[in-house]
Parts: sequence; C-alpha cells; structure tokens
Amino acid sequence: MAQRWTRLVRFKAHGHGDRIFLGQPVDPSIDVGLALHSGQPVDVYQISGTSALDNSAVVTTNKLQIAKLLTPLSQEETPLVRCLGLNYLDHAEEVAHLAGREKADLPRFPILFYKPSTTLIAGGEPIILPEIVKPYEEHLPDYEVELAIVIGKAAKNVSEEHALDYVLGYTGANDVSFRQWQQVIPQWGFSKSFDDTNPLGPVLVSASALSNPQDVPLKTTLNGNVVQNGNTSKQIFNVKKTIASLSQSTTLQPGTLILTGTPAGVGFVRREKLWLKPGDEVHCSVGAGIGTLINSVQAEPQKARL
Amino acid sequence: MAQRWTRLVRFKAHGHGDRIFLGQPVDPSIDVGLALHSGQPVDVYQISGTSALDNSAVVTTNKLQIAKLLTPLSQEETPLVRCLGLNYLDHAEEVAHLAGREKADLPRFPILFYKPSTTLIAGGEPIILPEIVKPYEEHLPDYEVELAIVIGKAAKNVSEEHALDYVLGYTGANDVSFRQWQQVIPQWGFSKSFDDTNPLGPVLVSASALSNPQDVPLKTTLNGNVVQNGNTSKQIFNVKKTIASLSQSTTLQPGTLILTGTPAGVGFVRREKLWLKPGDEVHCSVGAGIGTLINSVQAEPQKARL
Repeated sequence: MAQRWTRLVRFKAHGHGDRIFLGQPVDPSIDVGLALHSGQPVDVYQISGTSALDNSAVVTTNKLQIAKLLTPLSQEETPLVRCLGLNYLDHAEEVAHLAGREKADLPRFPILFYKPSTTLIAGGEPIILPEIVKPYEEHLPDYEVELAIVIGKAAKNVSEEHALDYVLGYTGANDVSFRQWQQVIPQWGFSKSFDDTNPLGPVLVSASALSNPQDVPLKTTLNGNVVQNGNTSKQIFNVKKTIASLSQSTTLQPGTLILTGTPAGVGFVRREKLWLKPGDEVHCSVGAGIGTLINSVQAEPQKARL
Repeated sequence: MAQRWTRLVRFKAHGHGDRIFLGQPVDPSIDVGLALHSGQPVDVYQISGTSALDNSAVVTTNKLQIAKLLTPLSQEETPLVRCLGLNYLDHAEEVAHLAGREKADLPRFPILFYKPSTTLIAGGEPIILPEIVKPYEEHLPDYEVELAIVIGKAAKNVSEEHALDYVLGYTGANDVSFRQWQQVIPQWGFSKSFDDTNPLGPVLVSASALSNPQDVPLKTTLNGNVVQNGNTSKQIFNVKKTIASLSQSTTLQPGTLILTGTPAGVGFVRREKLWLKPGDEVHCSVGAGIGTLINSVQAEPQKARL
C-alpha cells in the first residue's frame, strides 16, 4: 500500500481544525477545484508527512475530507517564484500586434522575472486588487493561466537531456498582472509582487504521472466566458529548455517554482480591453489532472498600515 | 550588561568547529573586513541566539575570535533579495551618457528587481564568474557597491514617515552585474541570479546606531585603484521612500534585504571598459561602521552537472 503520491493536495480537513494535511484524491478523475467550488465533498487519502518536498511521503489508507484547499507548497517552502514572460508563440504575437508589429521578435533566452511567495493564494481564495491599481480600467489587472514546474532536487548546470529528472511535479497558476505598472517600471519586480495576487494549484501532479509536459491544455474563463484556450505545445522554451537555461551557473533549490508563461488571450491586448474587477470570478484550468483554480476578485479592503 | 547589539557579525569561531555564532566586535572602531583580510585577530562579544532577526538577542560577555566571516543573515533567513536599479543621480547620468543622452530620465518609481539568496557570499569568499559569461571582456562582469537595508518586522502599506521603524539595520553589498546578459534579456532575473556573485556584509549595523542612512560613504577599489566613490546622499529614492514604495500592497517580511543601488563609477560605462577578471581583488567599503567587503574573483571551476 505504501506508494508514492501522483496527485497531491495540501488542505485543512473537516473535523481537524487548523491542522494542515497532504492528501491524494480518492477519485483520480475529480477536478478538485471545480468540485469544491460546487460544494461537492472531496475525499482524499492522507499522504504521510507535511511537505510535498519530503521524498519519503507515501499515500496512506487514512481518509479525510477537504475543508479548505491550500497551495500545494507553503510560502516558506517556495520563498521566491520564478516566472517566464512572453513564452508562448501566440501570446508573443498578440503583444507584437498591439505594438503595431506584424511579427513577434521571439526571445533568444527565457525572459525570467521573480515574485515573492507572499503573492500566492490557493484556489477558492480571493484575488486582491491593490489600492494602487485604481482605477482598474487604467491599470488593467489581467489574468494569465500557466503551467507551473516544481523543482524537487537541487539543479545546477543541468542539460536539457536530464532536466526532467529534477522535476517533482506540475501545478497550475494564474499570474495576475497589472499592465500599467509593468509599463511604468521597466523591471517587473514591483508590478508582479502584490500580496494575494497569484492563485496556485489546485493539484500538484507528480512528474511520473505527467511524462509529457508539452501537451497540456490551458484555459481561462472570466465570468463564464472562455478568454484563453491554449496548450503548452506552443511554448517557445519548453520545460526541458527552461530548466536547463535557468540552472546555468545558478542553483535551483528544491521547492523552486517556475511559472512557464501564458498563452494568447490576455485582456490588455484586446481591441476592447478586458480587466479584472471586484466581483469577477476567474477559472484557470490546467489539464493533465491539475484541475481548475477558481478565484473571486476583490478590492484591497483598506490600506492597513501595520 | 544585557543590551541589544549595535554591530552584528555572523561567523565561525576559532576552536568551535563549524558552529555558527553571532557577535559584536570588541573594538567598536574596527573594520572587520580589513582586519580579517590583513590577518589581524578580531575579537567579538558573543550575541545570544542564532539569528539577527531574533529580537531578544543581546550582547554577552563571552569573548570569541572570528575564524570565518559569514553573511550577516543566512540564505534561509533572507530567501529573496530585492534590489534597486539606477537609484543614484550620478550613476543614472553616467548610464545616460553612455547611451548618448545629455541628461538622465530619472525613474519616477524605484526600479525593483530580485535575485535569489543563492547569490550571496560573505566577505573573504571568492566571487565566481560563471562559465556562461565568457569571454569576460564581452560580458563585462561589473562591481556595484551598495548600502543594503534589512527589514526587521513585517511592513505593508508603510508611510515614509514611519518607514524607518521597520528597519532592523544596514549592511554592505556588492551587486556584481553581468552587463551583456542584462542587455540580451530585458528582465534582469537571469543576469542577476548566478550563484556566489553577491558579497554581503561584513557588519550589520543596527538602525539605532545609524540614524541617518542618507549620509553614508560608499567606495570600491579594484586591485587597489579607487573606482567608485559615492555617498547615499545622491540616492534618487532614499531609504524612507524606498521602503514606503516597495511596501505598497506588498508585505516586506522580516529578513527582507533591499540593495539600494550603486553610485557612479561602474566599469561598463567607462571609455576604457573595466571588468572583473579571475585574480582580481575587489574592496567595497560602506561607512557608518559597516566596513569593507573584500573578495577575490575566480572563474567557475567547472560546469559541474549535479
């Protein structure tokens, strides 16, 4: 019975207060995000240990029910988040068209930027629009569905050939972006760092259960309308190339999270701009059993001065 | 006797193996970096506890001698490093002149980028030039002396007026930069992330002991020649403004390290370019009792594939 997990969720369980558990859904075909959103009970087999990075964690026969979904890794386990910009052909093209260019100048190397893990929220938690992105229609808060890689063991100067050996698994992300601040400050550190703006999850699918990361469907719906509908096959730098490149002379530590970019369909390139507003509901679905992140959108409650 | 520290070093002590200590130099006027470099013994009073972030840490009467200097905070305590680009008038101008512009377009907001703490090394450790920055004369590895802020308690939506209340202390940094990669990839994530390229220290001076962070001299010497000679009075965004700005809708967690930018004199803007080469020795001196970071420069020993 003691086998490695293939689909991991981190959660609080009914009847167990604030204790945090790991588990594997009993029904392997369930979309954990959709099920929880519709009020359906989600049963899981408990996974031993408290961290997805614990290599000895195994699936047990102890059954629990999810009360509150959490991000697959804690903020402490993945303190800084690596992200790629313009990593899909179709998205690079839509951005080029916005700038009046027929064709995109494709990046020669992955465009890496960082955000802190204080940005991360789970499916079911609200995306918080910061005070300083008001008015929203000027600052264009935008959705970005992405496949996220989780590194399982320290990787440095890794070849493409061996890159996938360092992957613990994959999950989904919504790299919510604030376009005006991205344009005002040429480095994206500030614009990508706001608290509670990056949904992550719902399921972490093990590398063994997702052998081809280059055929994963990605879809965003905003208030029920499909706005992004892509596939990781359109990545400019695939998962292997991304890991090999980012690891050059640089250690990717266990728990490193790499958001691999978003496909076409984002809001700010549209003729009629689409932006996130308080009251909206965003669904970001990633295939291969990762499932759907469902997040409402709220305004920052107040400028709480700590 | 039980008083808070004002000047903190993290180190291994003679006669105590690999155990890590905190301490305060017995001689308050000593430059810890210069003294260690010249082989002079540096005696310290042990500080209780193991972390500069521990608010109950006090200076004891137990004397130790530094065997190996470490960074004031461990990589785990400060997992991601915030950095400002173009934050000195004189440096913004020298970069503008290189681009053929008479005057600099001063940034309206701090230009924030990140690097991982795997970049951090202590004074006395070698700066490692990555394999992928060869040939060095094309990739222009460059020195950048900086004042670094360490945040002591969680800061969010902080006003300029209260910003300094969140500062634990200040230390020095050398934000070694690889100009070619900065130009090839428009976001600086990749170019600023190489392992063992960011000296930090030597001393963490408490905020109480450095009440005016806008009058701190900064100096770099390369192989004995003074190449940077600035002062934090020339910062475009001073420490208060920087903290207030970066904390907008964003939590700066305890242990957050903010490198506040470099003054004029860097190598890549010079008519005769200056770059770091194996065998070089760089001294970055920061005033107010922080002291001198002394680091040799070495080539990455091999592309070790883990």
